[in-house]
Amino acid sequence: MNKKSFLGSSPYKGTRDFYPLTSIINSSNSISYKHHQNYFFETIRSCLILNGFCEYSSSLIEEKGAFTIKSGEELASNQLYYFTDKGDREIALRPELTLSIARMVADKFDNLRLPLRWFSIDNCFRYERPQKGRLREFWQVEVDIIGAKAGAVDFEIIRLILEIFQAFKAKPNMYKIMYNHRLVLDKWLSNNGWIEELEIKNLIYKVLDDWFKLENAEKEQKLLTKLDQKSVDKIFKTVDNNQSLEFKEYQEIANQYEEMILLQKLIPKLYPDANVIFTPAIIRGQAYYTGLIFEAFDNNPTNSRSLFGGGRFDDLLDLYGKSSPAVGFAPGDVSVHEFLAGWELYPKQPSEIQVVGIMPNSKEELENVFTTIIPDLQLQNKAFEIDYDYDRNPNKRYENLKKRGCTEILKS
Amino acid sequence: MNKKSFLGSSPYKGTRDFYPLTSIINSSNSISYKHHQNYFFETIRSCLILNGFCEYSSSLIEEKGAFTIKSGEELASNQLYYFTDKGDREIALRPELTLSIARMVADKFDNLRLPLRWFSIDNCFRYERPQKGRLREFWQVEVDIIGAKAGAVDFEIIRLILEIFQAFKAKPNMYKIMYNHRLVLDKWLSNNGWIEELEIKNLIYKVLDDWFKLENAEKEQKLLTKLDQKSVDKIFKTVDNNQSLEFKEYQEIANQYEEMILLQKLIPKLYPDANVIFTPAIIRGQAYYTGLIFEAFDNNPTNSRSLFGGGRFDDLLDLYGKSSPAVGFAPGDVSVHEFLAGWELYPKQPSEIQVVGIMPNSKEELENVFTTIIPDLQLQNKAFEIDYDYDRNPNKRYENLKKRGCTEILKS
Repeated sequence: MNKKSFLGSSPYKGTRDFYPLTSIINSSNSISYKHHQNYFFETIRSCLILNGFCEYSSSLIEEKGAFTIKSGEELASNQLYYFTDKGDREIALRPELTLSIARMVADKFDNLRLPLRWFSIDNCFRYERPQKGRLREFWQVEVDIIGAKAGAVDFEIIRLILEIFQAFKAKPNMYKIMYNHRLVLDKWLSNNGWIEELEIKNLIYKVLDDWFKLENAEKEQKLLTKLDQKSVDKIFKTVDNNQSLEFKEYQEIANQYEEMILLQKLIPKLYPDANVIFTPAIIRGQAYYTGLIFEAFDNNPTNSRSLFGGGRFDDLLDLYGKSSPAVGFAPGDVSVHEFLAGWELYPKQPSEIQVVGIMPNSKEELENVFTTIIPDLQLQNKAFEIDYDYDRNPNKRYENLKKRGCTEILKS
Repeated sequence: MNKKSFLGSSPYKGTRDFYPLTSIINSSNSISYKHHQNYFFETIRSCLILNGFCEYSSSLIEEKGAFTIKSGEELASNQLYYFTDKGDREIALRPELTLSIARMVADKFDNLRLPLRWFSIDNCFRYERPQKGRLREFWQVEVDIIGAKAGAVDFEIIRLILEIFQAFKAKPNMYKIMYNHRLVLDKWLSNNGWIEELEIKNLIYKVLDDWFKLENAEKEQKLLTKLDQKSVDKIFKTVDNNQSLEFKEYQEIANQYEEMILLQKLIPKLYPDANVIFTPAIIRGQAYYTGLIFEAFDNNPTNSRSLFGGGRFDDLLDLYGKSSPAVGFAPGDVSVHEFLAGWELYPKQPSEIQVVGIMPNSKEELENVFTTIIPDLQLQNKAFEIDYDYDRNPNKRYENLKKRGCTEILKS
């Protein structure tokens, strides 16, 4: 094996090194900065805690079998990092955090005070071709309310997402939230006679899921393979015009559900400028949702994309033989980073702590530096950085400390 | 394969789930708590930042080859979690953080402002038999000063360790720090004619490394296999009695080094009660140190153990074809947890944020809860938790919110 290729110093493909900004001479967009990552973690953590959520955490390694059962052998095999440990256990690096919270809640089920408002900020791995918004190692913030059936907790979740955007100082024009409800959708399909035949149901699900990606002609063509023109027209009017009688029909079904009433009534009062849109065209694929579903989008024209989604999944714990209602979502750091960077929402300064530069003229001054100057700075909650290049030109030393982020320089 | 054993809900062997304290009905020492882990992370992070260190981070996955070259094929194979990815790369979950910082610094070497005072808090994996103080997944805090030769940075590192203990509110009787210097040791060996013969040198290193574990008779017996009685007596007097003439000889060699002078002079002034001991009996195994070496110990009689160690390793970047002096250490969360738990140094409250419980009497009150009560609480920086069990006995609801950690309850 080639020794040189072994000791290349790049990070493993699809992973990032995070550097401190003040250590970098020429900063660039291709460098990942630790203070960006920390800003994401800390902002979302404070916001979640302020809204009554508690932090938990789980290990990166889970048994492979659980992912296979949850997501199917093929998906699991393609995307999973998995291997056999020295004790012959088949293990995997988690590709998401939802399975782990289900496992953790099931494991201590009888010793937990339900409902749980829980969150976790942890890293995950997926074997993917690295591209914009997708990497092999990423962080996810898993946020769930587990153990409450009340529609008010679905409302709490959408409200929380708006609070998170506000915590990041995002303006309402920068993002939108679209939501729907699986039971409303299925009742509507059923009222129209589109649910008995699984092929028809799946077709409508599929077209709705791709609604904003497909041209109208394409959607129409697809729907016409199984439905008559009148039905297709009705679907178009329901989805595309929320002033139509057809949408009102959809809305009336929604009015059976507490969460939908609360969302319609309170979101416009609390967040009058936010774009929060009820639409049948949010589906969240074939996943296991059982009620409210939603998705948040970046409105940036250069980077218009889904940021994250979620919903109610009352079957969450089934895999572990327990039963409990649940609603949640899981934003990832890579797409949120694109959002924050794109709208220039990162703070300019890496730290709120002031760093004072100290320039002793010789070793003899060190006693004074360590026994007087530094204890004094620490009492003022100021950090310090010492330059030991006694023989260098003092102006150069001064400039060097400035460039290293010191906001004040003490010459002794 | 047995489906049931697949979906056991315990965490993978040697890893931990971290639970929020307020969610647990019957708390116990066998449960890991997230607020303990966060207290460790946040306390050490603030302390490091206040002392001029910048945070960086690297990926969990590194190429396997680098660890093999650094630590030898055997050690790497036994302890490493490694596997081949779908692109035929041999990769490993890092068993430590030092290799990654060397790689990161080498990768951007010409774009970094040296010296670097850097730290990282990240998880690592080692395939070990889980036991007290050792797990398969653990967190390490890697702390290094890279790019400075001055002995004053070695002093900065020991001072920093004492600051960290103070940040954890540890009293001086709870821990001790012992230090030595590889160049001082080698000069002393050389002065006594014990260095030319590699077998003699290695024997003395080995016995010194185990000095506090072995009985005197054992040490003597081992040393006598290669040394005469006079030499053995000299070693004992040097190590065991720091008032002896023999130790003075050792001390005089140390006085050639700036870091040793600063430590002797300033530590007693700054930390008069701390136990910081200069002794030839700190060796740090066969590792790659090139100057100061040190180790911090827990003094707890029920759990007397080494907490972490470190030193100067000026060859840090050699593996990646760069050259730069470096000094550092890396405490792990598992042994520090034993220290904090053993001395009862964890804070009793999981959070500094006050959580207010809200008990609406019916759905009709929710509008007031969300549009008036909660915005009001948020302005006061108070978190909230809502109980939706309208039909339940109010006293039970009140008690339930109290048990969930609410310090104040609002009945609407």
